[in-house]
Amino acid sequence: MAAKDQVRALLFDVFGTVVDWRQSVIRELTAFGNARGLSVDWARFADDWRGLYQPAMEEVRAGRRAWTILDDLHRESLVTLLERHGVKGLAAHEVEHLNRIWHRLDPWPDSVEGLIRLKRRYIIGTLSNGNTGLLVRMAKRALLPWDVILGAETARAYKPLPDCYQRNAALLNLEPQEVMLVAAHNDDLAAAQSVGYRTAFVLRPVEYGPGQTKDVAATRDWDVITDSFTGLADAMGCPRR
Amino acid sequence: MAAKDQVRALLFDVFGTVVDWRQSVIRELTAFGNARGLSVDWARFADDWRGLYQPAMEEVRAGRRAWTILDDLHRESLVTLLERHGVKGLAAHEVEHLNRIWHRLDPWPDSVEGLIRLKRRYIIGTLSNGNTGLLVRMAKRALLPWDVILGAETARAYKPLPDCYQRNAALLNLEPQEVMLVAAHNDDLAAAQSVGYRTAFVLRPVEYGPGQTKDVAATRDWDVITDSFTGLADAMGCPRR
Repeated sequence: MAAKDQVRALLFDVFGTVVDWRQSVIRELTAFGNARGLSVDWARFADDWRGLYQPAMEEVRAGRRAWTILDDLHRESLVTLLERHGVKGLAAHEVEHLNRIWHRLDPWPDSVEGLIRLKRRYIIGTLSNGNTGLLVRMAKRALLPWDVILGAETARAYKPLPDCYQRNAALLNLEPQEVMLVAAHNDDLAAAQSVGYRTAFVLRPVEYGPGQTKDVAATRDWDVITDSFTGLADAMGCPRR
Repeated sequence: MAAKDQVRALLFDVFGTVVDWRQSVIRELTAFGNARGLSVDWARFADDWRGLYQPAMEEVRAGRRAWTILDDLHRESLVTLLERHGVKGLAAHEVEHLNRIWHRLDPWPDSVEGLIRLKRRYIIGTLSNGNTGLLVRMAKRALLPWDVILGAETARAYKPLPDCYQRNAALLNLEPQEVMLVAAHNDDLAAAQSVGYRTAFVLRPVEYGPGQTKDVAATRDWDVITDSFTGLADAMGCPRR
């Protein structure tokens, strides 16, 4: 059966797939630094921050650390990096403002249009390692028209653990094969496919900047392979009108 | 501080507050019965079905039964009532179709307009004993523009247990006093207030039919007391435009 005839819900990876986290983080950090006369390589800072993302989650995934939401992991990494990059004396509310940059990420240019089209036919939702509060605030600011906010926090398991995909499908009263994961990351799709999800790869070739080498092509024959959410809407039978 | 200056999110009781469950259930049951030539008092059936709602949840709340979602509790009650009302020989898919009437409830006439206005200023979401899949499908059909679907299933605790209110506020990174519960039921509001929520009572005087005697008035001085979601929007500083 074709994916579009079996699928009832499309769940989306968010960081990198729906929103351009890197340019958004660099832009906010740069504005913050300029206003305070700080001389820091903010692009490097942004990449370092994202670099601490997987190791931080791995402590939770491996069971060495109790359940902790991404906002708290992000904050710990931020405090580490502020010190490493020589930024001193910030007030607590300034640290919190910077940490919430992840609530204020901008979508890729095709994201909103594609989601609006897909929403007419399918349940659309997040399936993100971001916490619920982060994803709700991001959606309101960026006008992402989600039907439901799902992810690590609703499953209490970080991707790519199978529990994250399985528990969130169950929250929608759906079998895994009725759910499609949409992601710009081959490893996320592989984990979803291994529990029975349908899969869509969306190429985001500059997520990690101009020198990106990972995820610059699909590494398997995913159900859909495209380079935009509007291309995904076409593939899933959701016309422009 | 006025509620509207402190509140960041409005969370809504759903059955009876947002949607008219009773007329919706009676209408669907009647259509089903007419198509099959069944002679049943469907208004009585609907009231009996709702009557089994609290006792079924109480088994879970009291810890005598493992976590069970509302769709499954509803189905057990339905099977009991079909037998009691003499309806025999339904196929499994017909029972499932009837059980999913609760996914297809119609909103009160003011619900959608009020939610659209409130959404411009606040995070709006459910705080329902309905399961996530039920609430998502209801919202898509009835065009309820929720930012987030929260409730018993995201807290794994049925209202009015304090955990249900507390855990769902935490999912939004909010303190209880930054959340307002909107409900047509004084007991739900009392439980929310006891953990620190702000409260709004919306009068729904015919939720239980023309002879309703419970919740026909506010029993405390809630932060807002009104008779429609548009009245709530006025009280919360969300103008028509």
